[in-house]
Amino acid sequence: MTGTVYLVGAGPGAADLLTLRAARLLERADVVFHDALVPREILALISKGKRIEVGKRSGRYATAQTFINKRLADAARSHAIVVRLKGGDPMLFGRAQEEIDYLAARNIRVEVVPGVTAALAAAAELKLSLTARGLSRSVAFLTTRTAPGRRRNDWLRVALAADAVAIYMGAGEAAEISRALTAGGKPASTPVAVIESATLPGAQCRFGTLDGLARLVSGVSATGPVLLLLGEVLAAAARQAGRSAPFPSIVASTK
Amino acid sequence: MTGTVYLVGAGPGAADLLTLRAARLLERADVVFHDALVPREILALISKGKRIEVGKRSGRYATAQTFINKRLADAARSHAIVVRLKGGDPMLFGRAQEEIDYLAARNIRVEVVPGVTAALAAAAELKLSLTARGLSRSVAFLTTRTAPGRRRNDWLRVALAADAVAIYMGAGEAAEISRALTAGGKPASTPVAVIESATLPGAQCRFGTLDGLARLVSGVSATGPVLLLLGEVLAAAARQAGRSAPFPSIVASTK
Repeated sequence: MTGTVYLVGAGPGAADLLTLRAARLLERADVVFHDALVPREILALISKGKRIEVGKRSGRYATAQTFINKRLADAARSHAIVVRLKGGDPMLFGRAQEEIDYLAARNIRVEVVPGVTAALAAAAELKLSLTARGLSRSVAFLTTRTAPGRRRNDWLRVALAADAVAIYMGAGEAAEISRALTAGGKPASTPVAVIESATLPGAQCRFGTLDGLARLVSGVSATGPVLLLLGEVLAAAARQAGRSAPFPSIVASTK
Repeated sequence: MTGTVYLVGAGPGAADLLTLRAARLLERADVVFHDALVPREILALISKGKRIEVGKRSGRYATAQTFINKRLADAARSHAIVVRLKGGDPMLFGRAQEEIDYLAARNIRVEVVPGVTAALAAAAELKLSLTARGLSRSVAFLTTRTAPGRRRNDWLRVALAADAVAIYMGAGEAAEISRALTAGGKPASTPVAVIESATLPGAQCRFGTLDGLARLVSGVSATGPVLLLLGEVLAAAARQAGRSAPFPSIVASTK
């Protein structure tokens, strides 16, 4: 009897932004493989299951992923409920497909539990609709990290076309992002926000404009996940930041 | 003493895909204003609060929205916890900004609770990463509905540029979407999926190609919300649909 592997979205960080389904699976799980960035308040919801951290660090991706795939399959052969807990939503930038395909090829049952993704959590904290009528009818979620076999800057066209843009894992490339977007015709004055650890106690948000993106990013500690938001919808939130800070900690507005 | 208005994401439909925070607010709410499409299993989580449906139908938007804004403000003047429950995530295509701005202008406190949006829930049910490595590094969430003051087809450029596209509320414009995208250079063979009521018992998913989008849409009942997905990432899910239906009910594959 082979068990089921559940790929579960841990949400943006705050434990009460888990879904009910995810929380119940953490209670029932026999074993939980989790990313390095999942906060301890969420791991505390695991009752009987064994916790195994399978965090990956940049540069060692391929090896680590193959190893994780194998461990998930092995676990499903001896446990009924195996949870693979991923930050945010599993189907956005989480390499879930490689795990799903590996397990499916070995006839191991997989279920996926969606989660709240960081961009929507940040929008909620900023009280900022990403599709405010008259300002924005489209949002692009993207990463500027280049996978093998893809050309650099293939993210640029969509980032130029979308009314609002959420860039995941982009902090390390802020200067390049700013340069490529302004060269492509995005106004240097486009409002941007750099958000670190949205929904967590150490959350930070800094507002600015596209031409100052690299400087804004250098001001956050980057110990938690960093999200970049761009678009005219941010203008109102930036204006309000002075009088009512939407984040628990520092909200700085720079030009 | 004025209360707080919580704009709460009800998630894609299944009651256990609410966040823990949303579920707790439904328990504690004094009054809940909800959209017409929020399923009764979710409304059943309201314990003591009064339920008020404020569903809007196309064509009567503006009047209805002004009326909803006013009712929320009135409720906050006599109740501590007022919940405005919206399908999916409040910050995507929900007209939340108009409610937030109206309330903020009257010094009524607003909090936003994010939710799982339909596209991510559909991806989870299809076991399909929207950003599978090598195939997709960007996803655009958009609507083709034109707001006053915007030109028609301003969604087209981003839909052509993104690797994967989720179109909300697009069922009524499927023929126009298919025509505009193919005219813009998107291959007629681009895989598409039409998903109705994702995560609910009556869920349906139909796979096909961009040139057959209108015919696919005409095959769903459209009593629940319909989401259109486009992109090469769908090819694998469409291939698997024959042998293992990812949805509880009908999965049809047409050419």
